[in-house]
Amino acid sequence: MKTNWTYTTPGIPDDMFIRGDIPMTKEEVRIITIGKLRINRDDIIVDIGGGTGSLSIEAALMAKLGKVYTVEKNDLGIELIKKNTERFGLNNIYPIKGRAPEILDNVPRVNRAIIGGTGGKIDGIFHWLDNNLASNGRVVMNAITLENAYKGIQSFKERGYIDIDITQASISKGKSIGGLTMMQGQNPIYIISGAKG
Amino acid sequence: MKTNWTYTTPGIPDDMFIRGDIPMTKEEVRIITIGKLRINRDDIIVDIGGGTGSLSIEAALMAKLGKVYTVEKNDLGIELIKKNTERFGLNNIYPIKGRAPEILDNVPRVNRAIIGGTGGKIDGIFHWLDNNLASNGRVVMNAITLENAYKGIQSFKERGYIDIDITQASISKGKSIGGLTMMQGQNPIYIISGAKG
Amino acid sequence: MKTNWTYTTPGIPDDMFIRGDIPMTKEEVRIITIGKLRINRDDIIVDIGGGTGSLSIEAALMAKLGKVYTVEKNDLGIELIKKNTERFGLNNIYPIKGRAPEILDNVPRVNRAIIGGTGGKIDGIFHWLDNNLASNGRVVMNAITLENAYKGIQSFKERGYIDIDITQASISKGKSIGGLTMMQGQNPIYIISGAKG
Amino acid sequence: MKTNWTYTTPGIPDDMFIRGDIPMTKEEVRIITIGKLRINRDDIIVDIGGGTGSLSIEAALMAKLGKVYTVEKNDLGIELIKKNTERFGLNNIYPIKGRAPEILDNVPRVNRAIIGGTGGKIDGIFHWLDNNLASNGRVVMNAITLENAYKGIQSFKERGYIDIDITQASISKGKSIGGLTMMQGQNPIYIISGAKG
Repeated sequence: MKTNWTYTTPGIPDDMFIRGDIPMTKEEVRIITIGKLRINRDDIIVDIGGGTGSLSIEAALMAKLGKVYTVEKNDLGIELIKKNTERFGLNNIYPIKGRAPEILDNVPRVNRAIIGGTGGKIDGIFHWLDNNLASNGRVVMNAITLENAYKGIQSFKERGYIDIDITQASISKGKSIGGLTMMQGQNPIYIISGAKG
Repeated sequence: MKTNWTYTTPGIPDDMFIRGDIPMTKEEVRIITIGKLRINRDDIIVDIGGGTGSLSIEAALMAKLGKVYTVEKNDLGIELIKKNTERFGLNNIYPIKGRAPEILDNVPRVNRAIIGGTGGKIDGIFHWLDNNLASNGRVVMNAITLENAYKGIQSFKERGYIDIDITQASISKGKSIGGLTMMQGQNPIYIISGAKG
Repeated sequence: MKTNWTYTTPGIPDDMFIRGDIPMTKEEVRIITIGKLRINRDDIIVDIGGGTGSLSIEAALMAKLGKVYTVEKNDLGIELIKKNTERFGLNNIYPIKGRAPEILDNVPRVNRAIIGGTGGKIDGIFHWLDNNLASNGRVVMNAITLENAYKGIQSFKERGYIDIDITQASISKGKSIGGLTMMQGQNPIYIISGAKG
Repeated sequence: MKTNWTYTTPGIPDDMFIRGDIPMTKEEVRIITIGKLRINRDDIIVDIGGGTGSLSIEAALMAKLGKVYTVEKNDLGIELIKKNTERFGLNNIYPIKGRAPEILDNVPRVNRAIIGGTGGKIDGIFHWLDNNLASNGRVVMNAITLENAYKGIQSFKERGYIDIDITQASISKGKSIGGLTMMQGQNPIYIISGAKG
């Protein structure tokens, strides 16, 4: 089944994606992440730890004349990224299977980077960005653990990124139960962003 | 000073707007609000309770071929909306001074509505939407009080809106203090959205 | 297995309670709830919607010379309340099976009330409190739905309660995953309290 | 003016304390902190970074036969601690002026420790605890910065503390505005606790 997202805004509902058993960045966090990326129509974007590809899809829709390289280590993830790319009728997403930072050798120079999963290799990823992210290029890192939030912030600071923004988003969603609205809490997430100085 | 927001994504930093002493929808909540609105390039949008105009600006940027009618009751608000419209070089925002729902008689038929401030007139506003929002048109209501969240949800339900989404966003922002990152909590907000059935 | 909670403070870890498949008020929310109740050593307390009895246990420990009447509609709940009462070696908890407000006829005059589950009968419960809660007695209501939070606040206000406090608690707990601390969000809850005027 | 807190539960309202211009741990976070400390009637407690003394007061009330040593570096803080101790009619709080960890040489062996302010000396404080906290003694650390939360967790882990609990509390309080309840967000805080292994 094809889905056509014709809106000019990000924020695809979660259930429009094909999902496996791997975690997916939820709609509201995805919207904020894409917003913090500040995408241009022709940006070259890398999405590290692509998962289901939901962030790549949103990014590719905002960068219609650009390209998104989606790095993912798991076969299942790569498969989901391909299926979702096809579902949304996109032709500017390039899934690359492998582990960061090594696999990033296969990614060309970019001017936007999403760091979703790090596999603990934050330093290596930022080292690659030192050489392969354009000046003034933007990075958005999503951290669900306190330790990665800490190390991410250190990396942005130590490498002289500017315009550093640290946002924690705690999103709850209303679920209808017997006509009442129960609020269900999602896991809080740190969204750290900045521009290369 | 002119500002040119050339990105395809919403999420203008708060400090790029001219602000008075009136409250402004903060960046992250603005991004989610705009995302939930699911804007088309040529949408006709009403922003009720426009405040500084920050949501109108973001909406107008996403609806480049459309129009945004910004209703605001205060002179100061109207002035800020005009100044921010000029700052961002936009020509598709139409500020209208007055109180909802009465003033809405001056707004044409729309297919998107943002309800920011209600002045307690939620019923009247939804009544206007009954007659003036296109079928399948979308409404996003931001509520900072529990009572308005409650009444908003009731309104969406009673009038048969579909695809109702209730999101509470609690955003905290990192503030650098002596090299450390103190997290500062913003006020939680309910973002309620739906489509006309 | 007996458990002896000898501390002077509330905050029994969740896993010290015998739990069935029914929801339990989590440790941190339980601590706040008990704190808002401001218990005296000899208070007579009613816990409406007792569930597993976790709040009753904590209240009974703080009111060593008082009594806790725990109203619960389900057999399973009543059983868990009895088992937990036994586990903690308490003899001042009196489980009463039935639905509020009708069953409250079997509860004597109290000076503290916990409203956990309402079964939608907020009005009836407050009506009972009108006649059966001592002057200056305190009520703490926990609401997980927006509608009950709204109606609870209205009830406190309309009936002239004083010192009304409305707290929303969003608690996240760190979970160790591969040596990292993932924060897991619990559902936000409204804790509304006040004293009879 | 004297205040008499006769309840068996923690949770003194903020406005019952004499406050200067220094930050105070708010009621709900104070309740959770005291709960996590699991106080015995005769505990010897150190409160490092005592501020206004609000946590010391609550701890001293729960440890009626024990003692609280309150370490605070600022003169204003020491003065507030003394005034609040007097206001609540307590005689088991001992304010000690100076900076941790050096000043801790003046504190006797304890079995409970509150770490409020660290002045960046987390390592030194935990080193003192290595030698001066009783076996099975409990520590509760409140961190408002991401970096201190990270370092605190590392300290608990590296030194072999057991029963480590990491809680993030985001509290919002209802404020009545024109009869409506606006929720005001407080800053989220990490409350980290554990027992000496």
